[in-house]
Amino acid sequence: MEAGSATASRWAWFKAFPGRLKNKVTDFCRSWKKLGKDDPRRVTHSLKVGLAIALVSIFYYYQPLYENFGVSAMWAVMTVVVVFEFSVGATLGKGLNRGMATLVAGALGVGAHHLAKLSGSTGEPILLGFFVFLQAAITTFMRFFPKIKARYDYGFLIFILTFSLVSVSSFREDEILELAHRRLSTIIIGASACVIISTVVFPVWAGEDLHNLIALNLEKLGNFLQGFGDEYFKESKEDETSSNKDHKPFLQDYKIVLNSKNTEETLANFARWEPGHGKFQFRHPWKQYLKVGTLTRQCAYRIDALYGYLNADVKASLEVRSKIQETCTKISTESGKALQELSIAVKEMRQPSSADTHIENAKAAAKNLNSLLKSGPWEDINLLQVIPVVTVASLLIDLVNCTEKLADSIFELASKAHFNKPDHTVSPEKLSATVKSSPNVDCRHVVINIDQTPTPEILEEENSSAANTCIVKSVRA
Amino acid sequence: MEAGSATASRWAWFKAFPGRLKNKVTDFCRSWKKLGKDDPRRVTHSLKVGLAIALVSIFYYYQPLYENFGVSAMWAVMTVVVVFEFSVGATLGKGLNRGMATLVAGALGVGAHHLAKLSGSTGEPILLGFFVFLQAAITTFMRFFPKIKARYDYGFLIFILTFSLVSVSSFREDEILELAHRRLSTIIIGASACVIISTVVFPVWAGEDLHNLIALNLEKLGNFLQGFGDEYFKESKEDETSSNKDHKPFLQDYKIVLNSKNTEETLANFARWEPGHGKFQFRHPWKQYLKVGTLTRQCAYRIDALYGYLNADVKASLEVRSKIQETCTKISTESGKALQELSIAVKEMRQPSSADTHIENAKAAAKNLNSLLKSGPWEDINLLQVIPVVTVASLLIDLVNCTEKLADSIFELASKAHFNKPDHTVSPEKLSATVKSSPNVDCRHVVINIDQTPTPEILEEENSSAANTCIVKSVRA
Repeated sequence: MEAGSATASRWAWFKAFPGRLKNKVTDFCRSWKKLGKDDPRRVTHSLKVGLAIALVSIFYYYQPLYENFGVSAMWAVMTVVVVFEFSVGATLGKGLNRGMATLVAGALGVGAHHLAKLSGSTGEPILLGFFVFLQAAITTFMRFFPKIKARYDYGFLIFILTFSLVSVSSFREDEILELAHRRLSTIIIGASACVIISTVVFPVWAGEDLHNLIALNLEKLGNFLQGFGDEYFKESKEDETSSNKDHKPFLQDYKIVLNSKNTEETLANFARWEPGHGKFQFRHPWKQYLKVGTLTRQCAYRIDALYGYLNADVKASLEVRSKIQETCTKISTESGKALQELSIAVKEMRQPSSADTHIENAKAAAKNLNSLLKSGPWEDINLLQVIPVVTVASLLIDLVNCTEKLADSIFELASKAHFNKPDHTVSPEKLSATVKSSPNVDCRHVVINIDQTPTPEILEEENSSAANTCIVKSVRA
Repeated sequence: MEAGSATASRWAWFKAFPGRLKNKVTDFCRSWKKLGKDDPRRVTHSLKVGLAIALVSIFYYYQPLYENFGVSAMWAVMTVVVVFEFSVGATLGKGLNRGMATLVAGALGVGAHHLAKLSGSTGEPILLGFFVFLQAAITTFMRFFPKIKARYDYGFLIFILTFSLVSVSSFREDEILELAHRRLSTIIIGASACVIISTVVFPVWAGEDLHNLIALNLEKLGNFLQGFGDEYFKESKEDETSSNKDHKPFLQDYKIVLNSKNTEETLANFARWEPGHGKFQFRHPWKQYLKVGTLTRQCAYRIDALYGYLNADVKASLEVRSKIQETCTKISTESGKALQELSIAVKEMRQPSSADTHIENAKAAAKNLNSLLKSGPWEDINLLQVIPVVTVASLLIDLVNCTEKLADSIFELASKAHFNKPDHTVSPEKLSATVKSSPNVDCRHVVINIDQTPTPEILEEENSSAANTCIVKSVRA
């Protein structure tokens, strides 16, 4: 009986097998399709890599070319495989690093070979080995310098590689100069193929990605703030289940901003290799994007704290809530609008014209909130019940400050990157007059000032850009 | 006259030159020294790389070895240069990736060569080119899958490289099998040299680094919280300048935790390649470290919000401050102590015995704070002035929750990784009795519950580890 049931279950497994296999294959195909749909540039990039390698391998197939380069043509193929990256900047950076490093290390390797040869046939391998050891150790150590690691790491790696290969193979090869020359020229051919194909055929610009990422992150924060007021105060009335909130993507989207630092820095490093393209010039202020990114993250940390209060169990007294609901919602919405306007302005590369208005509105609302909290008849309140609402109010006021700082840095970006001015420009004389007559124009310290001390990196940046801030101030007001 | 002054200034420049040069050289030497001092393992790593390359280059110098491998010995040198990484895990991962990819791609390349040969001499290069194009495009696309990118990116790169080289050079070379064989064996020799040297000579374990990083991050947060109470309440009395605070490193140290995600993930990826070593076994629960890291960052975001209030200009009414000072300081100090105990426990790989006591103390203080806020005679307060203090209080209460969640995940880690138990163990029966008799043992919801909804990744993890949590609960209480 047992054997029979075992056979039956095995038969059932066997019968279900085609179905399961089909499911697996469908899942597999779906994940491929999704990967391509999420970013269609992945598909074109893959085709571009295939094309580049196939093109370069012609050096092997075509007799006249092969006669010139011989087996060294292998280096062209190898260069294409390792140098071709997703974005133009990364490809250019790797290509230039590889080319330069090969040139310098090749020359030094030939020098080491001649030096070692002076010491006779017994001393030569010892001296060569010592040279190889020395340069590998020193260069490896230098790769730990943060600045080198960020931009020239690949070049230093290729330096070790080429120096070792040239000086070591010089021991067996006599025509070392010709070898080095052929290798260098094939590497240059391979790197050029990469750079040309990646720049000409559907180019992917790291700078553009960084630009869009910054705008997108601002938009995400803006969306959260625009929705936050309604979401927070609605809950007390309709008593929504908290799981419902998890289905509103705009309340969760901000989370990706919290950890965006690394991506932004990588993109900025690549972007600095890129030539001028489209709306971006060669020396576009990529560093300023990183400053904007840092301030965006500071906003996101506050928003993360706010998010915690969306799920608070404690129902603050309805009376208090309703009293400050309007102003709180106004602060949140206006800050959100300001962030969205900033996001659109960055995206469209124009001066953010209406962001200031929204920030002023938010500040005015914050002032209102302050006077409300001051004046209100709070005799019989239970302070415990007020805490969450008051904390939310306080965090929102803090957020206005963050938003203003962010706006400042985007104005600085707009001035450095020569974004288009809005149509309704005012004459500079009138501007400076307005600034002087109303000392409160920088109202950052009017409302409760919970000023964040900027991080050291930002401080450093801010000091160095004091001059620019003046320009910015006159451009914006 | 002008020419004279120009000459003079040039002369002055020339005279100052040796001094400036000396300064530059001193600066240069100092930066090298600092780099080595910050992490002496950098120096040993550099020497290890030099040693490995020098060792492998013996294949060229020593005649009997050279006769065996010939020019293919170059591949051993190349492998060492690109595979040798700082940590054992990274080296092993790259070495295995390279070895496996070369094997598979080499076999497929030979297959492609035989297939292409069937189509005659005109068709062969066309078919070979098509194969190379196809596999390069497909493999490049597959590298975009996040799971592949995290662990097998290098292998896929080498797959493209080897397949292209083998199938392309097969067009010119007849002894393709021997070529592939020689290349594979030299690559294996190079990779083995890397792995052996990096494992035997002063090994740097990525897992250990991750372990220490997690402990260090906890300690930083603990230090902040231990100091925060005194710092915040002292200010109102002595009116310190805020610049003074910037010189207290423990108030700034937490900032590095905010952006630690990337480092932790990279280290965890490397750690998973590492064999058992010292206190860590082969299948050490590295993923759990990432969960602890995520919760640590959530604490750090709260701390970042707290930090903002250290620099607030508004002096809350001294009366209110003094009323809640004691309890607030207690919450902060006890949470800090709990975090420090957790940090030490992780560092020493033992169950955190006293962390629970501190968390209970913090919770009790939070309860006190609640009743204080409820009962206090708040008739004549100006709500506006109370806001900052009340917000700080609320953030601190929130932090207790964060700390408790963190402690939970560390208890889970301790159970998964079989950390040593403290000496004063209680019998399991007694334990479960205690848990049952006091439903408040999980007091997370006793005080104001500003519960953070965990991020999706954590949620997923939490569901999958429901079984473990039970063990944890019984182990800890």
